[in-house]
Amino acid sequence: MARPYNFSAGPAALPEEVLRQAAEEMLDWHGSGMSVMEMSHRGKEFTQIATQAEADLRELLAVPANYKILFMQGGAIAENAIIPLNLLGDKQTADYVVTGSWSAKSFKEAKKYCTPHLAAGALTGPWLAVPPEPTFSFSADPAYLFLCSNETIDGVEFHALPKAPAQVPVVADMSSNILSRPIDVAQYGLIFGGAQKNIGPAGLTFVIVRDDLLDRASPLCPSAFEYKTVAANGSMYNTPPTYGIYIAGLVFQWLKRQGGLAEIERRNIAKAELLYGYLDATAFYQTRVEKPFRSRMNVPFFLKDESLNDAFLAAAKDAGLLQLKGHKSVGGMRASIYNAMPLAGVQALVAFMKEFERTHG
Amino acid sequence: MARPYNFSAGPAALPEEVLRQAAEEMLDWHGSGMSVMEMSHRGKEFTQIATQAEADLRELLAVPANYKILFMQGGAIAENAIIPLNLLGDKQTADYVVTGSWSAKSFKEAKKYCTPHLAAGALTGPWLAVPPEPTFSFSADPAYLFLCSNETIDGVEFHALPKAPAQVPVVADMSSNILSRPIDVAQYGLIFGGAQKNIGPAGLTFVIVRDDLLDRASPLCPSAFEYKTVAANGSMYNTPPTYGIYIAGLVFQWLKRQGGLAEIERRNIAKAELLYGYLDATAFYQTRVEKPFRSRMNVPFFLKDESLNDAFLAAAKDAGLLQLKGHKSVGGMRASIYNAMPLAGVQALVAFMKEFERTHG
Repeated sequence: MARPYNFSAGPAALPEEVLRQAAEEMLDWHGSGMSVMEMSHRGKEFTQIATQAEADLRELLAVPANYKILFMQGGAIAENAIIPLNLLGDKQTADYVVTGSWSAKSFKEAKKYCTPHLAAGALTGPWLAVPPEPTFSFSADPAYLFLCSNETIDGVEFHALPKAPAQVPVVADMSSNILSRPIDVAQYGLIFGGAQKNIGPAGLTFVIVRDDLLDRASPLCPSAFEYKTVAANGSMYNTPPTYGIYIAGLVFQWLKRQGGLAEIERRNIAKAELLYGYLDATAFYQTRVEKPFRSRMNVPFFLKDESLNDAFLAAAKDAGLLQLKGHKSVGGMRASIYNAMPLAGVQALVAFMKEFERTHG
Repeated sequence: MARPYNFSAGPAALPEEVLRQAAEEMLDWHGSGMSVMEMSHRGKEFTQIATQAEADLRELLAVPANYKILFMQGGAIAENAIIPLNLLGDKQTADYVVTGSWSAKSFKEAKKYCTPHLAAGALTGPWLAVPPEPTFSFSADPAYLFLCSNETIDGVEFHALPKAPAQVPVVADMSSNILSRPIDVAQYGLIFGGAQKNIGPAGLTFVIVRDDLLDRASPLCPSAFEYKTVAANGSMYNTPPTYGIYIAGLVFQWLKRQGGLAEIERRNIAKAELLYGYLDATAFYQTRVEKPFRSRMNVPFFLKDESLNDAFLAAAKDAGLLQLKGHKSVGGMRASIYNAMPLAGVQALVAFMKEFERTHG
C-alpha cells in the first residue's frame, strides 16, 4: 500500500527510501553487528558515517573551505541565544530583519545578550512580505545582520539575499529551506537551522560558519555551544546526536542521487507553482502572502468559509493527506512541501482540494 | 544469527526487542502512516508517545509529584553549564564532589558562572574511590551540592548518597547509572544525564528537577535551556528530539516488562559480581578501583601485560564481543554492562577472558 502524503511543517516527511534503509540497517549497520544508535561516537564505524555526512553536505551546498560545518543540538531556538553568545564579541548590537514569527522570536531572544536593532520588518504579524530593501535601516556597528530565509509559520521566503553593510556578516536561519535550492554560502557569515524540516530528525542542528567568526565567543557561552570548541572537536566535544547525523547522511546521499540541488530546486519550483497556481485560480481557497515572497516550502492557505476547516482536514486525512492544519498563530491550513514531498503528493493535494471545492463550494 | 555483545560505554547497546520494534514501526507507527521521525511534535500521535514515555519514567523511578521530568538536548556536558545558569540564583558558589573525569569536567565548566568549591575528591586522577564522608568540607552557602553518581570513564560509583548540608539541594549526574537500580528521588534536588547509556539514543537529555528550584534562572540562560520555560511547555518549548523520546519510551516499556528497577538491580548485581569476581580471581587481569566504589555499570580492567592489548581486542571482536577498548585517559579495557547487557553477555565475556588467559598466560 502506498504511504500517505505527509505535509507536516516539521518534524517533516522523509524520503521513503531513507526510512526503508534505516529500518533495514536498524539491527546491524553494514555487518558491524551494531545499530547506529549503539555505536561509540568515537569508533571507526560512526566516524565513517559522520565524516561522509559532512562531506556530502559540503558537496551539496558547495561550502567553501574556510567554513566549518558543525552538528549541534538545541535547534534554531537554542541558536537564537547561542549566536549572540558566540558572535557579539565586544559589540553592543546586532541588526535583525523580522519577516515572521521565527525571526521575531530570534530578535526577542537576542535581548538577553545585547540591544538588537530592528533593521527591517515588524515585531508583530501578520507577516506577508519581505520589506523593500531601500527601507532597510542598519545600525552603526552591528555584530551581524540576522534574517530568517524562510518563515515556516508565515510562509514568507527571501528569494534574493539583501545586501548587508560592508564587513557585516549575514546570519541566516535556514531551518526550513536549507538544501531546497543552491545557495552561495560565501555571501553568509553563518547559516544555521534545525534539521527536522529538510534534513532529518528533530534534535540535530546544523551550523555552517566562516572561520573568522570563531574567535569572539563570550566567556559565558556554555562550552558545548561554543563554535570554536565544537569545531576544534569535529562536533564531538559532547556526544553528538549520532542517529540524527546518520539519518541526515542518508538524506544527503538521497539528494545526490536525485541530481543535487539544481534538480531539487527545479522540482520544488514545479511543486510550488502547481499549488500556488491552483490557489490563485480559485476563490474557494485564499492565500495571503504577497506573490514575490511566497515560500516554496510552506504554503499557508485558508478556506474562504472557515466553518469547513474541520471537514476539510478530516476528508484530507481520509484521502491520505496528513498534517495540513495551519499553525495556531496563523490559522487555516498549511501545506509544507519540502524536498521529500514528491510532485505526486502536491498533485494529490490539488486534486483533493478541487474535489472538496466541487462538493462543498 | 545471534547479535554480538556490545560493551560500548555510550552510545551503548539497546535491548534487541526495542530495536526490532523500532525497525518494524519505522515506516508506519501504529497505522498512522508516518514514521515517528515524521510526526509533528504537537500532533496527537507524538503527544501520546511523549506522555506515555514521561509517565513510564515517572513510574519506574517513583518520581514524586513535586518533581518535573524534562526532556532536553545537549547531554551532560551542556548541563554542566545549564545547571549553574539555572540554579545559582544570587549565590556565589556551589559545592562539587569530584570522583572522576566527568565531575572534574563539571567543576571546570562551573567556573564560567561562579567560584565552585571542591567539597571532596580531586581535580586530577587517577580516581579510584569516593572519599570518606567525614572528610567532606562544605562551603558556607552553596547553591547546590554536585556529584556524579557513576563515573563512566573511571568506573567509580556512589553506592550510598552522602549527606548534604540542610537545605542544600543535591544535583546528580546520573548519565551512566540512571535506571540501573531504584533510587529515592526525594533525596535529590535535580537528577540529570545524557540518555545514551541506559535510556536511548544520544541527543536526548533527561532532567528531573524539584519544583522549588525552577525559579532562580539567570537572565543570561538561553530560553531553550531554562528549566522553568521547558517545564511550562511540557518539554516542547523548542522541538524536542522526538525520535530519541520514542526510543526511550520503548526502553521504559521494556524495563517495565522485565519487572522494573528492583529486578533490574538484581540482574545488574549478578552481572557485576560475575565480572569482578573473575577479575579478583586472576592475576592476568587487574582492576584498580577500590572495592566499595566499583561501578556496576562500567568496569575498567587491564591486562597485566599491556603488550597484549591489541591481540585481546582483536580476538574479542572475533568472538562477538565489541567495543571493549578503555577510554584513552585511563587506558586498558572497559566493559560497560548497562541494563541492556544480558547476563549471557557477561558470561560470554568472562569465558572469553579465561580462554585468552589460558592461551596467552
